[in-house]
Amino acid sequence: MANITKKVSWSSRGDEPAPAGEGTPLLNGAGGAARSYSRQFSGSGIFQIGRLSTVDLEEDPAPEEESAISRPKEIPHNEKLLSLKYESLDYDNSENQLFLEEERRMSYMGFRCLEISRWVVCALIGILTGLIACFIDIVVENLAGLKYKVIKENIEKFTEAGGLSISLILWAFLNSVIVMMGAIIVAFFEPIAAGSGIPQIKCYLNGVKIPRVVRLKTLVVKVCGVICSVAGGLAVGKVGELLHHALSNGLMSSLVDVGSLTPLSQQIFEYFRRDTEKRDFVSAGAAAGVSAAFGAPVGGVLFSLEEGASFWNQMLTWRIFFASMISTFTLNFFLSIYHNKTGELSNPGLINFGRFDSDSVEYNLYEIPLFICMGALGGLLGALFNVLNYWLTIFRIRYIHRPCLQVMEAMLVAAVTATVSFAMIYFSDDCQPLGEDQAENYPLQLFCADGEYNSMATAFFNTPERSVRSLFHNPPGSYNPPTLGVFTLTYFFLACWTYGLTVSAGVFIPSLLIGAAWGRLFGIMLAHITPYGSVSIWADPGKYALIGAAAQLGGIVRMTLSLTVILVEATGNVTYGFPIMLVLMTAKIVGDYFVEGLYDIHIKLQSVPFLHWEAPATSHALTAREVMSSPVTCFNRVEKVGTIVDVLSNTSTNHNGFPVVTRVMDDDEPGKICGLILRSQLIVLLKHKVFVERTRSRLNQRKLQLKDFRDAYPRFPPIQSIHVSQDERECMMDLTEFMNPTPYTVTQETSLPRVFKLFRALGLRHLVVVDSENRVVGLVTRKDLARYHLGKHGLEELQLAQT
Amino acid sequence: MANITKKVSWSSRGDEPAPAGEGTPLLNGAGGAARSYSRQFSGSGIFQIGRLSTVDLEEDPAPEEESAISRPKEIPHNEKLLSLKYESLDYDNSENQLFLEEERRMSYMGFRCLEISRWVVCALIGILTGLIACFIDIVVENLAGLKYKVIKENIEKFTEAGGLSISLILWAFLNSVIVMMGAIIVAFFEPIAAGSGIPQIKCYLNGVKIPRVVRLKTLVVKVCGVICSVAGGLAVGKVGELLHHALSNGLMSSLVDVGSLTPLSQQIFEYFRRDTEKRDFVSAGAAAGVSAAFGAPVGGVLFSLEEGASFWNQMLTWRIFFASMISTFTLNFFLSIYHNKTGELSNPGLINFGRFDSDSVEYNLYEIPLFICMGALGGLLGALFNVLNYWLTIFRIRYIHRPCLQVMEAMLVAAVTATVSFAMIYFSDDCQPLGEDQAENYPLQLFCADGEYNSMATAFFNTPERSVRSLFHNPPGSYNPPTLGVFTLTYFFLACWTYGLTVSAGVFIPSLLIGAAWGRLFGIMLAHITPYGSVSIWADPGKYALIGAAAQLGGIVRMTLSLTVILVEATGNVTYGFPIMLVLMTAKIVGDYFVEGLYDIHIKLQSVPFLHWEAPATSHALTAREVMSSPVTCFNRVEKVGTIVDVLSNTSTNHNGFPVVTRVMDDDEPGKICGLILRSQLIVLLKHKVFVERTRSRLNQRKLQLKDFRDAYPRFPPIQSIHVSQDERECMMDLTEFMNPTPYTVTQETSLPRVFKLFRALGLRHLVVVDSENRVVGLVTRKDLARYHLGKHGLEELQLAQT
Repeated sequence: MANITKKVSWSSRGDEPAPAGEGTPLLNGAGGAARSYSRQFSGSGIFQIGRLSTVDLEEDPAPEEESAISRPKEIPHNEKLLSLKYESLDYDNSENQLFLEEERRMSYMGFRCLEISRWVVCALIGILTGLIACFIDIVVENLAGLKYKVIKENIEKFTEAGGLSISLILWAFLNSVIVMMGAIIVAFFEPIAAGSGIPQIKCYLNGVKIPRVVRLKTLVVKVCGVICSVAGGLAVGKVGELLHHALSNGLMSSLVDVGSLTPLSQQIFEYFRRDTEKRDFVSAGAAAGVSAAFGAPVGGVLFSLEEGASFWNQMLTWRIFFASMISTFTLNFFLSIYHNKTGELSNPGLINFGRFDSDSVEYNLYEIPLFICMGALGGLLGALFNVLNYWLTIFRIRYIHRPCLQVMEAMLVAAVTATVSFAMIYFSDDCQPLGEDQAENYPLQLFCADGEYNSMATAFFNTPERSVRSLFHNPPGSYNPPTLGVFTLTYFFLACWTYGLTVSAGVFIPSLLIGAAWGRLFGIMLAHITPYGSVSIWADPGKYALIGAAAQLGGIVRMTLSLTVILVEATGNVTYGFPIMLVLMTAKIVGDYFVEGLYDIHIKLQSVPFLHWEAPATSHALTAREVMSSPVTCFNRVEKVGTIVDVLSNTSTNHNGFPVVTRVMDDDEPGKICGLILRSQLIVLLKHKVFVERTRSRLNQRKLQLKDFRDAYPRFPPIQSIHVSQDERECMMDLTEFMNPTPYTVTQETSLPRVFKLFRALGLRHLVVVDSENRVVGLVTRKDLARYHLGKHGLEELQLAQT
Repeated sequence: MANITKKVSWSSRGDEPAPAGEGTPLLNGAGGAARSYSRQFSGSGIFQIGRLSTVDLEEDPAPEEESAISRPKEIPHNEKLLSLKYESLDYDNSENQLFLEEERRMSYMGFRCLEISRWVVCALIGILTGLIACFIDIVVENLAGLKYKVIKENIEKFTEAGGLSISLILWAFLNSVIVMMGAIIVAFFEPIAAGSGIPQIKCYLNGVKIPRVVRLKTLVVKVCGVICSVAGGLAVGKVGELLHHALSNGLMSSLVDVGSLTPLSQQIFEYFRRDTEKRDFVSAGAAAGVSAAFGAPVGGVLFSLEEGASFWNQMLTWRIFFASMISTFTLNFFLSIYHNKTGELSNPGLINFGRFDSDSVEYNLYEIPLFICMGALGGLLGALFNVLNYWLTIFRIRYIHRPCLQVMEAMLVAAVTATVSFAMIYFSDDCQPLGEDQAENYPLQLFCADGEYNSMATAFFNTPERSVRSLFHNPPGSYNPPTLGVFTLTYFFLACWTYGLTVSAGVFIPSLLIGAAWGRLFGIMLAHITPYGSVSIWADPGKYALIGAAAQLGGIVRMTLSLTVILVEATGNVTYGFPIMLVLMTAKIVGDYFVEGLYDIHIKLQSVPFLHWEAPATSHALTAREVMSSPVTCFNRVEKVGTIVDVLSNTSTNHNGFPVVTRVMDDDEPGKICGLILRSQLIVLLKHKVFVERTRSRLNQRKLQLKDFRDAYPRFPPIQSIHVSQDERECMMDLTEFMNPTPYTVTQETSLPRVFKLFRALGLRHLVVVDSENRVVGLVTRKDLARYHLGKHGLEELQLAQT
């Protein structure tokens, strides 16, 4: 109360279109009192007030499937926008009477069974993730092997005879064709499968509904796309991080769907048909994917937590851990069969960086400053990479938004990659003697003497994982400094160009490769500079390659804890844990000074309303009153069907949550909150015609079961597909049983950080703002909170856009 | 509304004493309407309704220092009780006007500085933890070395001459004296320093205020106690887990206190004087401790998260990680100086299990079932250990609660340990040839031939860490199976007896040692059983020792994720990660079937109101109405000083939080909530005489700063020490500025799991329950939620006891 009078200035901005938040505008559009609560800002002057006035009134209100297909309009060009097209996920259970009755009916054994079936689903996710990872690995291995064999034979044929340009053309052609296939399926069938998938999974776990992320189709496209882009020789990782996302999600989704088909498991799996359970399975899937990719179960769990979770639940963490374990195990087991070493499980995941031997893994105090320097360098290079990729992405959003253009760009990149690699190899004169136990599968002799191979070719003429491994483990002297320098430079730009193409591909492995190259270079330089060339500890450039790889990757993606563990697990040795951490921290600090991490940049460019961990530090001056959307479309506890249909059909708003109120007097005053109902619930109610005529007793209302709601999940029909006759419009609908009777509420005076904490910690979708009389005065949704962020000049407010 | 009418039976239990929760009873004790909300239960019959009627009316209401000293009454004998003596911590900021004004005044740079100083504090915590760990290590090493040298010389002298009983007496005497010193300082000066400290830290991070845990005195006692108990040859770990707790906490506390002394840092450190910031530092300290102890920075972070945190905040996690890193680094650095290898940082933490070489670290598919069997065995043995220790603890609580008895028991255990060890060594005839590079520092020849040593002595005549290491790494054949069997059996009971003594000691290392012994035995047996004795993979009993150690430890403490990482980091090799996980999971599942983990048992025995991760599964039938304490003591926004003093002085209640209400009519009806004020705040207000006479304008009220509140933190004076004259009692106090104007509230119909989630995720201390008119009808505190737990027969309710 006292707070209200302290506000400085209140300006009514009635001339602007109503804010189209997730559950707000003017049904009971009382212009007067309610209007005065509209989005206003305290007069402190630190906010860039703004709201894009171009609310598309002809905007397609159809469900998300359609709206995302119209791709040209999809991505706004300005990262200072927040798109309104993204819906939120409901991580807060709607505890309506139906749900509570079901829970109360359930015995303790029922909950035990439920818990066990959660573990079973996690095990299935792990197994399937492992199997798919195994499949990808084997196919890529064979396909790339075939390709390199053909080219190698061709090169060898033409090396002495002259006419190597034919080899070049063959190489470029093969690459382009393979990449084209990958690009086509991605661009035409499932654009969401493009890229690494990490931004999408981050958003999903954050609570943003990314359309079509958890579909079987996405999974299939992703798997094929990954195979094509890696086999096509692009500067991308084989399965790196990209694996996990579509995999797990598609899997999980289909698991639950399939599970529901068999009558036996129906009852159990049906319980999982809600966003909360789904999120938990997606977390498990993400962890299992990382775990399979790097052979890093703990790293996978940490990844899933660092990127996604907010509320750390022990049981959930253990399930995630279990899924990770199972996926690594499955992968190892089947790979051991494939490699004819059935049962030998000691080898790690797909991306095997080779184990650092215990003898050589030592470091000394005076190397710590060097590591920190490398971390800083990694941060700088990472920032450069991100800035370049940012510009490139902007360019792509503006000019390359047609699928055929995208495919052509991918083919171009493939051809250029082949050409550059070829030129590098051609002009390199770095010949090394052919060792016996080296990692290269395709040593290219080219112009080297017999018994020697071209060292540049080791780096280029290989899948990136193998290159990383050889950079880590090849004995000192395997690479000349100029080779490494040129390689770093070239690969840096190639990788930067490649990330963001319309192919399924990640940035993990390329980053590691770049870092390993300059790290090894750094190590060699050090050995040259130090007076005693024979100091054994300097002599291992592989160590510096590892540190460089960590620095570069850290500089680009800016993860610390999970990345440390992943790298430790992937290299099989914990001794370098401390230096790797140090390097990752330094890289993050230095990189953050210039620009955000790559994934965050891409999330911002897609204008996703992403909630960070905490509210901006200086946002204590804001209260719920200024943040909330208002006035709110509310329903009465017993509402006219016509009103509901009209509100749901209102294309300019497309709200998803509606407070249910008991109106004390007339419409002049907002009603007292008594519940919250979701659009999806209303749609199911309308579909099942759960209404009674005004004259009849309300007891006649048809009974609905929770099952009816679950059956419709997650693809609720649009309101347009439900026909409501004129007579039915006059009927009444009693929402009491279906609404969530205990939504979380805050008062208007609550500060933004406090609102934010509540919203984020509980994974809310709608937070009702009430006055001291419990009357609804506003609604806080994800967009309202995500709008505020700390810019260079203090707190800034993002604009909302309908695009 | 509709919910209320659905309740089956309402029984008023007015004959029972009022529930003495953290902020409840009958000031405005309206017997009628408000009373009918009193704790009632739905008629489902699954609840064991009960409340201990023995509320101590003469209970000492003095602050926690006193109440815990009266030890005989301290611990109730029944784990079905919840003690009311524990207060909660305030992890939710009280965002009153003063706080908000301060936050609003603070610039962006101010927040940056704050953030940086948080990092600095974490770094300091890391450094100090590392230094103390280093100190303990060196002192223990030297002290134990001295002891063993004296005894060894003595034994050697008497071996041939006869009269070994003198050696035995010497050994027992030395042990007893050292242990006595440790027990005396613990028992007489700081009883909270007893035990491993993990239960205490779990409670603290859970939000329970354990008196005197974060004190410098506790730290000093703990360090000395640890040194004495390890050097005294008890079956305890050197620094295991026990290290972290008092260390970090005492450190942090004193850091912040000391920091506040110097005027420069005063402003910054002052900001940290609240429970939220303190908890974060304590988390960091816990992680740093584990990290230093095991050389496991990631494991430390995970430990801190698994045991404590609920809301996973990325920045916080990074700070914790940073502290862990720094502490490992500091420890390594100073140890490397001590060992004259300055700058070699590759060695891990205090407890070095030796690195498993890459060659021998292989396992095969058919070993997985064996590992699982070992996990199950570990779970069984762990459960046995816990049950035995549970009985022992009950016995101790009943009969050994006087400090002198406790010291005597500790001495007895020390003497018995020495005697048993001596007997084992004496009667053992397991002689092994003296190797060259073995880990034993004190090979005892005894009755063995020249050039041989007594193998039993390796296990007993050594600090436990060294024994573990030799069990892991000694070549096959170093131990005879009978030796191992007898050793396991003896050590099992010794360790079980030792844990819970009034000495500072942990259970980590003894568990590992027991497990390593039977694991190695298992491995040797396997090699015997298999037809081809020469299968190389069986030949390494060290591998089975590791797995056995993991199984035993997992069976006792029931951690999974963090323990996996700790073991992986401590052994320096990730290959065994998967088997270790598997074993830990199995051990946990099997063990949980019988009895809870050791730490949970001890927490329960202390009747701590510990909140688990989720509400019990079948608790959906309960709503806030049934859970809350009611009626609530409320204050008016402008309250008479006399009333406040009376309420605070009411010794039978001792509430800590009071809703502030605006009373619309007379006292008949509960008022509308408008804020929440804490006892501590009221005490500061009273101390500073912030009140005005009834006649004067309220503007005359003395202005208080946030600083005044912070200066009083954390040792607020008791109400008795504040003198309020009769005139002053008639004055009024305006609470508006000081109360938290936006406490989180829930409605009466909210289900228990929902209340629980809100409470736990936000770390609340008081949650106000309101009706639909926003009138205060109840208050939910920690005890109200912790009371419900899932027992063997469904949901059970614990009794509350004043003890």
